[in-house]
Amino acid sequence: MYGLIGQMLATPGKRDDLLKLLSDGTADMPGCLSYVLATDPGNPDAIWITEVWTDKAAHSASLALPAVQAAIAKARPMLAGFPHRFETSPTGGHGLSI
Amino acid sequence: MYGLIGQMLATPGKRDDLLKLLSDGTADMPGCLSYVLATDPGNPDAIWITEVWTDKAAHSASLALPAVQAAIAKARPMLAGFPHRFETSPTGGHGLSI
Repeated sequence: MYGLIGQMLATPGKRDDLLKLLSDGTADMPGCLSYVLATDPGNPDAIWITEVWTDKAAHSASLALPAVQAAIAKARPMLAGFPHRFETSPTGGHGLSI
Repeated sequence: MYGLIGQMLATPGKRDDLLKLLSDGTADMPGCLSYVLATDPGNPDAIWITEVWTDKAAHSASLALPAVQAAIAKARPMLAGFPHRFETSPTGGHGLSI
């Protein structure tokens, strides 16, 4: 499996719009076993995204999906940065489902 | 919902033993919506744990479960540190299940 843990910063006041865009644009992605969006209690502009994919290729392929492309295009002006990005190799656990 | 993202370091050579302990000790935790264990491609001693709970109280209560207490006791001598720990407020996504 292939995993990503990332923190994204929205431009001021745009966090919830960005969260909605990400939520709407990332349903039904083939090979996605888990995709969790979260706010950050310590930073009103931050979003955490934790992802688990069957493999790295499935994640790469998702970036070409029309819904994902559309979400990325709309999200770009609301993005202020990516302070944290970690790649992981998930080994198992609870809550992984296609 | 309540979320935790953490990176844990094992003492040298103990990562896989620690991973097995964490995996065995954390099945069937009430209120746990997601619990994913992962290795770190950039650090052979590191483990990432991403967790989603119904609320903070469910996470706190899990620490008192006999299986979790037993895992913590066995894990302690294999732990070298916790370089990253982030609390989050998950808002939704894919792969959250009781």
